[in-house]
Amino acid sequence: MTPAPTAPDAPTRPTLAVVGATGAVGTVMLSILSQHADIWGEIRLIASPRSAGRKLAVRGEEVEVVALTEEAFEGVDIAMFDVPDDVSAQWAPIAAAKGAVVVDNSAAFRMDPDVPLVVPEVNPHAARVRPRGIVANPNCTTLSMIVAMGALHAEFGLRELVVSSYQAVSGAGLAGVESLRGQLNLVAGTDLGTKPGDVRRAVGDDTGPFREPIALNVIPWAGSLQDDGWSSEELKVRNESRKILGVPDLRVSVTCVRVPVVTTHSLTVHARFENEVTVDHAHEILSTAPGVVLFDNPAAGEFPTPADVVGTDPTWVGRVRRALDDPTALELFVCGDNLRKGGALNTAQIAELIAAELS
Amino acid sequence: MTPAPTAPDAPTRPTLAVVGATGAVGTVMLSILSQHADIWGEIRLIASPRSAGRKLAVRGEEVEVVALTEEAFEGVDIAMFDVPDDVSAQWAPIAAAKGAVVVDNSAAFRMDPDVPLVVPEVNPHAARVRPRGIVANPNCTTLSMIVAMGALHAEFGLRELVVSSYQAVSGAGLAGVESLRGQLNLVAGTDLGTKPGDVRRAVGDDTGPFREPIALNVIPWAGSLQDDGWSSEELKVRNESRKILGVPDLRVSVTCVRVPVVTTHSLTVHARFENEVTVDHAHEILSTAPGVVLFDNPAAGEFPTPADVVGTDPTWVGRVRRALDDPTALELFVCGDNLRKGGALNTAQIAELIAAELS
Repeated sequence: MTPAPTAPDAPTRPTLAVVGATGAVGTVMLSILSQHADIWGEIRLIASPRSAGRKLAVRGEEVEVVALTEEAFEGVDIAMFDVPDDVSAQWAPIAAAKGAVVVDNSAAFRMDPDVPLVVPEVNPHAARVRPRGIVANPNCTTLSMIVAMGALHAEFGLRELVVSSYQAVSGAGLAGVESLRGQLNLVAGTDLGTKPGDVRRAVGDDTGPFREPIALNVIPWAGSLQDDGWSSEELKVRNESRKILGVPDLRVSVTCVRVPVVTTHSLTVHARFENEVTVDHAHEILSTAPGVVLFDNPAAGEFPTPADVVGTDPTWVGRVRRALDDPTALELFVCGDNLRKGGALNTAQIAELIAAELS
Repeated sequence: MTPAPTAPDAPTRPTLAVVGATGAVGTVMLSILSQHADIWGEIRLIASPRSAGRKLAVRGEEVEVVALTEEAFEGVDIAMFDVPDDVSAQWAPIAAAKGAVVVDNSAAFRMDPDVPLVVPEVNPHAARVRPRGIVANPNCTTLSMIVAMGALHAEFGLRELVVSSYQAVSGAGLAGVESLRGQLNLVAGTDLGTKPGDVRRAVGDDTGPFREPIALNVIPWAGSLQDDGWSSEELKVRNESRKILGVPDLRVSVTCVRVPVVTTHSLTVHARFENEVTVDHAHEILSTAPGVVLFDNPAAGEFPTPADVVGTDPTWVGRVRRALDDPTALELFVCGDNLRKGGALNTAQIAELIAAELS
């Protein structure tokens, strides 16, 4: 008998580039790529020239990081970017011009009308139309709630969101984590936190990426100052929610607050819909929505907290209540790992969606 | 010349009893009584029998704690209670029957229609009508925002509040503070907070008064479970805000969340009014309102945080923005020391108000 020909899979598998492989989200990305079904041919790791030559493990193999150059995108089918806005703004179009579909996790292209902003559980169809060859990944704070809100919107028709965030320090990168850990070393074992400024004096002037001490504190600020006192992070949640849900006139009010949690953003959401809602109906939707875990039984001590949610993929939802004074509004408490669904996971899901389309 | 007669002040000064003098709020109360103008004759310290005989400093003198008995209220003009609800429910009427005006900081009487619920900056007149001889002090979470909201309501007419809290552990008493401090010792110097359940395993089962670990975490729960999934703390903020502001049909939605801060509650507030508002007008009101500090200049890094506010008396307000999609709504971030204005200070202010009326 003639032996069966070698399966022609290997040559047709797409080449993936991970740009920003050494960062906080990049590190989680490599772990996700190692866990997910392996659909990729080559996985090329790209970072700034100072990280070039480092070796990182992905799919159980050591891969050498190459420097970010135009040539690095040679033969790449899909390039995931996890780099600062200005680096994306410069390099994503270069990668796209080299023929790669770019999945970008910066803010550079999210509001570009020619760039779709995609959450695979909510608007997967949007990823197919990409005039610039770029697909944008939403901000981590938007992503921490939007899967749950998308499911409720599909059923009830969302009209208004009032959101308050409890954002983890890893949203500010590894520097944020180091800052919190360093400060915890200074306040643990003390009786600080009861007199004006005592935490600030103990922590000193170096508060890392934050504008105030973060140990034993909360900071009502994330991002840069925009018009009329809004922070960039607050406007991102508003504008991105509108674009992803396809409701351009959605009313959205957001206040972003940083809390001393390492990883996993939490949000309180007051969501007003077109018609009356019930908790039972909302439970029914949330308990079957892809990517959502309903964890809502306070009598049994069941509500999500970052300590339980960190390291997991879904959006966790608890504390579902109907507003006492408005039968069209629900209150929810939502947690999502800002480095997984809030960053690397959603980017990987978009890349997998596009890989399936290209194949 | 005949010498002037001795001033008759001393005998007419009212006798004050502090019931619960050894607790978290009681301790702050003794410090406030030592700092405020001394209008009191005797200050009698009352606590549970197991604390009787302890000596505590007030007005620079050591005072022996006496046990809570009916006789302990003999000759008392005003009795401040800072004890659990059931102790207040039992003993406040006994003190009132002995002729004392009771200022009670428990939840036992707050919603009693025959008991006024008083914030001296907002509704001082209410303290004069007290059919049961009892005046109630609001919950610490309500108090952390209500002075600011009262000032805005007087100008703009409040219609709706959507509130999310960032509540300090001392709201759960000294046990809450000890629990956070013990847990910080266990997580400082580690790389915990990045894997599901790693903080929980490090902290162990003893989470003190909380239902989850509080170090490196936030917990969307405060109080006891009430109907339809609401917590008692959330309903208190709703019902007390309505009563204090005198707006029985005010729409109020609250989600209460505990954060790893020792003392000072923070809240985000989405406040909708009868008519259009502007940030300039709101700033004007808040900058002159008694008991309020406006600290709102993000360009200069100015917004309140618990680390700065702890140990101070006022309600601090920052991040004032007009809702982008609703010209009748403001967003605010508010901080108040939950043991001072949120507890001891407001109680002392009510007692001083009544002392002035009695004299």
